[in-house]
Amino acid sequence: MQEFTYRPIGLIHTPFKKREDAPAQGCFARESRGEVELFPEYLPGLQDISGFSHLILLYHFHQAQGYDLLTQPLLDKEKRGLFATRYFKRPNAIGLSIVSLLGVRENRLEVGWVDMLDGTPLLDIKPYVGRFDTRECVVDGWFRHASGLNNGLPVPQPQAGEHG
Amino acid sequence: MQEFTYRPIGLIHTPFKKREDAPAQGCFARESRGEVELFPEYLPGLQDISGFSHLILLYHFHQAQGYDLLTQPLLDKEKRGLFATRYFKRPNAIGLSIVSLLGVRENRLEVGWVDMLDGTPLLDIKPYVGRFDTRECVVDGWFRHASGLNNGLPVPQPQAGEHG
Repeated sequence: MQEFTYRPIGLIHTPFKKREDAPAQGCFARESRGEVELFPEYLPGLQDISGFSHLILLYHFHQAQGYDLLTQPLLDKEKRGLFATRYFKRPNAIGLSIVSLLGVRENRLEVGWVDMLDGTPLLDIKPYVGRFDTRECVVDGWFRHASGLNNGLPVPQPQAGEHG
Repeated sequence: MQEFTYRPIGLIHTPFKKREDAPAQGCFARESRGEVELFPEYLPGLQDISGFSHLILLYHFHQAQGYDLLTQPLLDKEKRGLFATRYFKRPNAIGLSIVSLLGVRENRLEVGWVDMLDGTPLLDIKPYVGRFDTRECVVDGWFRHASGLNNGLPVPQPQAGEHG
């Protein structure tokens, strides 16, 4: 069986020490701030990054173990196919968040809209590019009617941080 | 040193047999179609997926070897910090594409806007959710002035498929 081995290139520091503290998605916590600490040997790769307003962070869900192919997301009451959710327990536990870039200081990036747990191992940083990553006429599947989403507004109480 | 081991959950079939054939980004090849073949054991995880118009595919750049922290992207003439590019040679060679979902047939998804090579190993499928993944007021850094981008229009001749 083919395997791929990845190593962390840094750590993500956030205010969320426990899953119960973290929002289900960054868009429910626009005021939340964190810091991406890139390990110093990768510092040259940050050249030109300060020109971008948003970054895509890929990371390992380090508190995920196992998965179910049908799972109940935090934002709904029904079980859904895992690949139709953003739930953190996945065959390959790779997380994706789009954060705002607030500042760069050497190997540290101050970022907003964070939703990941403190100490999350960072796998990659990619620039969010409007023309590449924005889609029009998006249909959001079951999220349109999810009981945890209140008519398109952020839920009053952030869900339990399991990236549902 | 901490390591994470991932295994492919499927394969991505596209018309692009060689890097020279593939577009630099899916938005330069909106007419390109491909097929995501999920390995049959993961089939239950596709429940509810047909409700989404777009999917995020994470995959392994299986033809990438090594990387440079400063690299010349295909869409520009200047070297850029690797993490400010989408270039495929990265410390962790994880690719990300946002594709349109055109059809679902058992464990096979017909998708559009593909830019990856034929036979690319699939790591994850996530639903693209408008409210999670669309950002406003995006500033695209060096891409705004990249010589390979023609005033915001797709380049006439797709670049050489190295996801620059």
